[in-house]
Amino acid sequence: MIIVKIGGNILDNPERLRRFLVDFSKLQGPKLLVHGGGKIASAIGQRLGITPVMVEGRRVTDAETLELVTMVYGGLVNKQVVAQLQAVGCNAIGMTGADANAILATKRPVREVDYGFAGDVAGKESINITAIVAILQAGLTPVFAPLTHDGNGSLLNTNADTIASVLATALATKHKVTLVYCFEKKGVLANADDDDSVIAHINPEKYKELKEEGVVTAGMVPKLDNAFAALHQGVSDVLIGEAEALLSIKETDKPYAGTTISLE
Amino acid sequence: MIIVKIGGNILDNPERLRRFLVDFSKLQGPKLLVHGGGKIASAIGQRLGITPVMVEGRRVTDAETLELVTMVYGGLVNKQVVAQLQAVGCNAIGMTGADANAILATKRPVREVDYGFAGDVAGKESINITAIVAILQAGLTPVFAPLTHDGNGSLLNTNADTIASVLATALATKHKVTLVYCFEKKGVLANADDDDSVIAHINPEKYKELKEEGVVTAGMVPKLDNAFAALHQGVSDVLIGEAEALLSIKETDKPYAGTTISLE
Repeated sequence: MIIVKIGGNILDNPERLRRFLVDFSKLQGPKLLVHGGGKIASAIGQRLGITPVMVEGRRVTDAETLELVTMVYGGLVNKQVVAQLQAVGCNAIGMTGADANAILATKRPVREVDYGFAGDVAGKESINITAIVAILQAGLTPVFAPLTHDGNGSLLNTNADTIASVLATALATKHKVTLVYCFEKKGVLANADDDDSVIAHINPEKYKELKEEGVVTAGMVPKLDNAFAALHQGVSDVLIGEAEALLSIKETDKPYAGTTISLE
Repeated sequence: MIIVKIGGNILDNPERLRRFLVDFSKLQGPKLLVHGGGKIASAIGQRLGITPVMVEGRRVTDAETLELVTMVYGGLVNKQVVAQLQAVGCNAIGMTGADANAILATKRPVREVDYGFAGDVAGKESINITAIVAILQAGLTPVFAPLTHDGNGSLLNTNADTIASVLATALATKHKVTLVYCFEKKGVLANADDDDSVIAHINPEKYKELKEEGVVTAGMVPKLDNAFAALHQGVSDVLIGEAEALLSIKETDKPYAGTTISLE
């Protein structure tokens, strides 16, 4: 089973998105897509007179921002992706964490910062695996927007990377799962200034070395920590690379074009 | 199987919607909900500077109006209804016609009027019954927004009454289906000035009489014609009444509180 996460760098580029969805449709076997937001939410928010409130680089989800992301992520982006996948023969079904009670979250507790309607997912026990597996077994491909719910009637804004990783760890209890993060670089780079210096494979020993040598940049550390956390919870491989590298996952004669992260 | 359609008169009233969803959650057996739009789309459209274009009382769906209804109907309204149903123990899954390729439509041909991205559904053969039945069998309750798709990547705006009736006729090929239209009156009225003059039962003979006597108002004729069309295509009963009458459907000791339309 393959779980692929795409972010704003693809969603904001219609031609790149179209090509990515064609590639995604060609992946054989059960699969899920998780998408983030992109600039469209901010653009529509601006037209609606909703000013983004950021604290320490994170968006604060007040009531009207929650309505905005519900409309834009759960409606506009999600349904456009679904309709485009249908056009290339992939029987997609758009979902949020509220749909099929797929992902239960709790409103982030207020400490120094009140993040508003931001949802934290406790872990794989918050995932309705039965429903998701039933949907996959019906031959459908779930497409998740970055929204969850609290079980009491409120939607919550949840990071798409988190949704991808928690879905992967939950499904890994029943299936062999590969988790793919499509991002803006070709992979984890040995040299930040050289886009082609992709490190093909990182295991725990290699990761330790890379951190000691200062090769891994600060921005990559949380991504890699999350990747290893997913692996320790049973996910088989985590792949990080460009959206354009997606189909190389399935090529048997050569390795994945981005970075493969595994425990071995 | 019960298919219930709700419109703006309920969606625009949060307290009435909340009560309705509690009642809907109590209906036993497989069920589907279809919702329309409501005033919220116009309100958000106004804030976005989108001016509604109406021709002969019908909204013209230009490209930005399609984005608006995709956001508002497919995102905001649909997901809020789903989250609220989850809170009362109904395992809802929000859908448009694009999701699971549930409802294929064609863009309305341009004749005197160009309705833009308005989708017409040919009939029950445009419904992916297999997928909808699989979703129902997984114990899920589909909640449909009034959107379809053309199979070529475009979403289309489709009347919620039409969606409810085409889903009902398609599912009637496999199941005993009751179709319920919740609307603003208690039922079809014998006297338009008396809200309590509900006609309990209408069959084809009675309908003929009512039309001859001029009892049925012009506004009701298309609704009743559609109801009889659904019955002729295999739907068992069509019920028209207030949202508050929903639970009386299942009461065995007294009839439905609104109007029951059937062939017998």
